[in-house]
Amino acid sequence: MTGQRLPPEFQLIAEIFAPLAAGTPGAFGLTDDAAAIEVAPGRRLIVTVDAIVEGIHFLPDDPPADVARKLLRVNLSDLAAMGARPIGYVMATVLPTDLDRAWLESFASGLADDQARFGVGLYGGDTASTPGPMTLSLTAFGDAEPGRELRRSGARLGDRIWVSGTIGDGALGLKALRGDLRGVTVDGLAYLAGRYRVPTPRVALGQGLVGLASGAIDISDGLAADLGHVCETSGVRGIVEAGRVPLSEPARQALAAEPALRADILGGGDDYELLFTAPPAAAGRLAELARSLDLPLTEIGRVEAGAGVAILDESGRDITPERAGFRHF
Amino acid sequence: MTGQRLPPEFQLIAEIFAPLAAGTPGAFGLTDDAAAIEVAPGRRLIVTVDAIVEGIHFLPDDPPADVARKLLRVNLSDLAAMGARPIGYVMATVLPTDLDRAWLESFASGLADDQARFGVGLYGGDTASTPGPMTLSLTAFGDAEPGRELRRSGARLGDRIWVSGTIGDGALGLKALRGDLRGVTVDGLAYLAGRYRVPTPRVALGQGLVGLASGAIDISDGLAADLGHVCETSGVRGIVEAGRVPLSEPARQALAAEPALRADILGGGDDYELLFTAPPAAAGRLAELARSLDLPLTEIGRVEAGAGVAILDESGRDITPERAGFRHF
Repeated sequence: MTGQRLPPEFQLIAEIFAPLAAGTPGAFGLTDDAAAIEVAPGRRLIVTVDAIVEGIHFLPDDPPADVARKLLRVNLSDLAAMGARPIGYVMATVLPTDLDRAWLESFASGLADDQARFGVGLYGGDTASTPGPMTLSLTAFGDAEPGRELRRSGARLGDRIWVSGTIGDGALGLKALRGDLRGVTVDGLAYLAGRYRVPTPRVALGQGLVGLASGAIDISDGLAADLGHVCETSGVRGIVEAGRVPLSEPARQALAAEPALRADILGGGDDYELLFTAPPAAAGRLAELARSLDLPLTEIGRVEAGAGVAILDESGRDITPERAGFRHF
Repeated sequence: MTGQRLPPEFQLIAEIFAPLAAGTPGAFGLTDDAAAIEVAPGRRLIVTVDAIVEGIHFLPDDPPADVARKLLRVNLSDLAAMGARPIGYVMATVLPTDLDRAWLESFASGLADDQARFGVGLYGGDTASTPGPMTLSLTAFGDAEPGRELRRSGARLGDRIWVSGTIGDGALGLKALRGDLRGVTVDGLAYLAGRYRVPTPRVALGQGLVGLASGAIDISDGLAADLGHVCETSGVRGIVEAGRVPLSEPARQALAAEPALRADILGGGDDYELLFTAPPAAAGRLAELARSLDLPLTEIGRVEAGAGVAILDESGRDITPERAGFRHF
């Protein structure tokens, strides 16, 4: 074809698809992690969809059960970012005709495990064949009380910026899988690879943050980019102190061996931790929540007037990664 | 890969995916057109998903707006078969990197038209790139009162079998597009092609059948196969008189020129009319409903004890097409 090529994903959504959502209040202009469908007084269904493609989002050699769990979990992570309780999912599996049955059985076993773990059920699906790479899309549903959902747009001046867990493990895990990481123990490499392959959606945390956090997002595009989404929709500026960003022990090892990895840690995606903002007065209740969930919550920065994101090193220099928010497309 | 190849779609769903839905009552064992999610007392969300692949379900030269409308409409047809009121949809678009922007703009314009026509909105989506053919999946939502949904499993002994509109236009339309049809006027060929490319989901009929029809399905796999699904889930046998199956004028022309097309008409898919069962006493109210919707409803057969489907010609001979219910996969 000869015409204009497609713009990057964010722009594509804004220019081509967002107008289709303009008349639908619960679509939030396609700028949030999920949408809300008013289904009854006092009840909203939260809906999100993600698609993955073999060779791009996963590899033919990846364990099929892990592919299944990641597909489900990235959607549960979107629900968590909205503070929703997961209910279930539907799935479209577009499969190569020569796919091995054993692959699909293993894939289904991964789903079965995670259905039990997260208390969700399969509600329906469609199956088709393709001459191209396997393509899987999953739509997940949760529920929430109207007006209580966590939104990206809720960050306010003076709020603090928090993250759950540790940051950068997803990006380093992908490097580990490619053999591109040094200075990390074998156990550490396996830990990072596992964080990339099977992330942990912060479902209980998301529900615990309802009424406590002002804005929230899950870190799928990277710390810098996802904080950028929160700041853009909230109309504020985000300042992060790089030294406060929590790292796992293997990530520390990798960073010590190769300081340039700091850009991957701050800019890479696939962590599926929650990033959220909250007023300073919420610190005590957030500490309680962290204890009750046995999940570290770390204050890493603050919300100021302005626009954009700045990640500052110990000397106050702006080290925000270039091309923050690269995503498949 | 070396192991066992995949079974056909129905079997695949039954063997691999249905066990994942076993603990989820609203999934109906993956045997219905859509699923029901209990969202509040007295309120169920009806959910369905369909995926289409370039080169299999649509062709690169098909008008993009028609591709969009068919994708949305086949899902609305599933909602109609459940008697649900459509609300909106989410969509995953997996696009070749060299896709022309104009294609996508035309695709979006088709969605915009149909959103207005059917009163639905876009709630969210995901976009990814693929080295393979374009793959689009759409999840549609509607609502219904619990226990009032139309189900495939509701057909009862003594019920009559009805269809809306005319049958076989979808299969003949595909032949028309391929240049494989003779004896039909140019206008007739265009009519059939249009029926294949942009079907009309019977949304108002579906809602009108609530409380009136005992079982229902939309005809996507073909009259014989879809009646087969109703009979199997209902535990009954369906008898159809081929001579009563309503045909469009172009379909009559095609059949007159080539009598062997009867198998395509009775066995082909993509009509997206509703097939439903109802007790004989419902005939009067069905006639009223047909008048109010300006849509023909035709009684074509009856429900008996037993299993399976028989389509009988004028002399009572069983002419049920072989391989009834062929579907992409």
